[in-house]
Amino acid sequence: MILKDATQEIVDNVLSVTEGLDPKKIEKMSELLQTSKNVFVMGLGRSGLVARAFAMRLMHLGISVYVVGETTTPALSSEDCLLAISGSGETFSIISAANIAHKRGTKIIAVTSYVDSTLGEMADLVVHIKGRTKIDSEKNYITRQMNGKHQSLSPMGTLFEITTLIFLDSLIAQLMVEMEITEEDMKARHTVIE
Amino acid sequence: MILKDATQEIVDNVLSVTEGLDPKKIEKMSELLQTSKNVFVMGLGRSGLVARAFAMRLMHLGISVYVVGETTTPALSSEDCLLAISGSGETFSIISAANIAHKRGTKIIAVTSYVDSTLGEMADLVVHIKGRTKIDSEKNYITRQMNGKHQSLSPMGTLFEITTLIFLDSLIAQLMVEMEITEEDMKARHTVIE
Amino acid sequence: MILKDATQEIVDNVLSVTEGLDPKKIEKMSELLQTSKNVFVMGLGRSGLVARAFAMRLMHLGISVYVVGETTTPALSSEDCLLAISGSGETFSIISAANIAHKRGTKIIAVTSYVDSTLGEMADLVVHIKGRTKIDSEKNYITRQMNGKHQSLSPMGTLFEITTLIFLDSLIAQLMVEMEITEEDMKARHTVIE
Amino acid sequence: MILKDATQEIVDNVLSVTEGLDPKKIEKMSELLQTSKNVFVMGLGRSGLVARAFAMRLMHLGISVYVVGETTTPALSSEDCLLAISGSGETFSIISAANIAHKRGTKIIAVTSYVDSTLGEMADLVVHIKGRTKIDSEKNYITRQMNGKHQSLSPMGTLFEITTLIFLDSLIAQLMVEMEITEEDMKARHTVIE
Repeated sequence: MILKDATQEIVDNVLSVTEGLDPKKIEKMSELLQTSKNVFVMGLGRSGLVARAFAMRLMHLGISVYVVGETTTPALSSEDCLLAISGSGETFSIISAANIAHKRGTKIIAVTSYVDSTLGEMADLVVHIKGRTKIDSEKNYITRQMNGKHQSLSPMGTLFEITTLIFLDSLIAQLMVEMEITEEDMKARHTVIE
Repeated sequence: MILKDATQEIVDNVLSVTEGLDPKKIEKMSELLQTSKNVFVMGLGRSGLVARAFAMRLMHLGISVYVVGETTTPALSSEDCLLAISGSGETFSIISAANIAHKRGTKIIAVTSYVDSTLGEMADLVVHIKGRTKIDSEKNYITRQMNGKHQSLSPMGTLFEITTLIFLDSLIAQLMVEMEITEEDMKARHTVIE
Repeated sequence: MILKDATQEIVDNVLSVTEGLDPKKIEKMSELLQTSKNVFVMGLGRSGLVARAFAMRLMHLGISVYVVGETTTPALSSEDCLLAISGSGETFSIISAANIAHKRGTKIIAVTSYVDSTLGEMADLVVHIKGRTKIDSEKNYITRQMNGKHQSLSPMGTLFEITTLIFLDSLIAQLMVEMEITEEDMKARHTVIE
Repeated sequence: MILKDATQEIVDNVLSVTEGLDPKKIEKMSELLQTSKNVFVMGLGRSGLVARAFAMRLMHLGISVYVVGETTTPALSSEDCLLAISGSGETFSIISAANIAHKRGTKIIAVTSYVDSTLGEMADLVVHIKGRTKIDSEKNYITRQMNGKHQSLSPMGTLFEITTLIFLDSLIAQLMVEMEITEEDMKARHTVIE
């Protein structure tokens, strides 16, 4: 069943990325999230949905957090940090936003598959979340087939997006312990109007 | 030209509603917006867009404001106020949200065409913004024609929505003076990332 | 009462802009909206809310319409048109989007206060909606006072945004007549889930 | 490292849920998505973000899809289907929307942790996505500790939300094969304006 194979491919990527995470970077990221005056999150398309999902949990933790592009999001300052999510690290409007943030002295955390990308290069902290391997995006199908490589079952940015979401949700678990916040505390901050 | 007639109809409604505004209610509304810990705004469909447009300006004024339903909107408390915009005053999910707000002790400001509606009845403060007159929604076209009444050029909630937006933007002008905030102050709070 | 003065200022701008509208441009805009395969609308901040309010009504008219940036908005084609709303006509991401649209052969309708702006120059059709006069944004208050000019009661883009909304809603009235669509038809297309 | 333990807990839930999926239900769901005139997706909070992420991929597949609550979403008809995502199956506004859909003859697909919930009972097709086990939500910590059960590292709906996202993205892989759509086809439909 293709569905189950696709799930396995996703899980494999999640476990492989998690294995390779650098504890020092996680520690620095956790510290930035806890000590910034405001945290801003940003991403485009499905990466933007992942950014929003993380922002909700940060709000539940009592951290002051805003989603870039939402109605009441204020201006950035040098006491804030900006978490930018971009698989390629080259998304035009993300780079453009990061440039503005940089000029205002806002710390930038990049979550990307390409550490050497424009976004990666300009960030204060880069978390590397591998998505698909290069072979998948090769246009030369014959080369791919000759190498015995099969096409990924996860089209476009799927692997990057899901792996990033799981990484960020796992970081929430870490933050709960570090900040000594219980689930009951979080529920009390949860929006009551649905 | 129908377009110009439609604009005139809108302007006529705006001027007529503005004429009838109760200064004491405006004063109370202004006070609630300035003294609440957080202001929450809410509306559905185009009324929701009007609510968002007002929320942006409140943020520019330095007021802590959230749009119900956006990502990082927190829970309501008794120190907050909820501005609910509903032409009919009977929008199901607005009533349901107002009920929750009421139980939590949040002050409710209703902006509606029907002061006696469910929303109007449960609000702490009701601002009456007239939309279309009843004749327009009468299904009996013959009755209408016999009375020499023509159909409105503003379908559905258009008159209510635009009149509410202009009322709220005019209240921003009033708040700027009362709070001694200049346009330069507002621009400094304006989102820098576009 | 400042609130009433602010409303008058808004109404004055609306009437003055409406007076100056070029019927031929309205006709061409109406035709583009009716004959395009899909209409895309776009704006940032409060101009984006105005774009959304217009898109809802176009959907009610049975026109296939998408808001740039929403979840299920597809790619642009040469059979489509893009309505871009920008007071200054220089909003970076709007220009960038218009460039992409232009390359794909999508017709561009610009609604702006500056016909000679970058957006105005690249559009197939420009509708001129005047916002504040230049004097209001002059930083030299003394010059302004000496000229007996008072500061506008409508901060930032307020005049442009409201005037644009009323123009677009009045165009809906015109389209209803041209397309022979009744309010009952529109209500049947209205979202039933709130 | 707590972060890695949290990731493992998520992966374990994903694999366990995937193992238990009923192939006949997947087949029926796949058929409904392909044969409905329009697909509507709906969810609240983070479940709403998961719904949006799925909707983007359905659009890439060329399926006509709308997110309930977005600007240009039309009315439901008996030729459409509604995919409703709710962990508890008791989310008030989801139930309320499903009721409207049911009256209009729209087919309902429920994705929930509780097959016997109100949503589960009224759906035409229920996909069971287990979230946390009951023990985690037990308020009696002592009972929990005495049973040697530890608190979940995934607060609130996290396990349900991520597992649902991975299930839906894996279903996309299945749909790609069934519909004979390549990644290149999907990219051609991808929004070009960012």
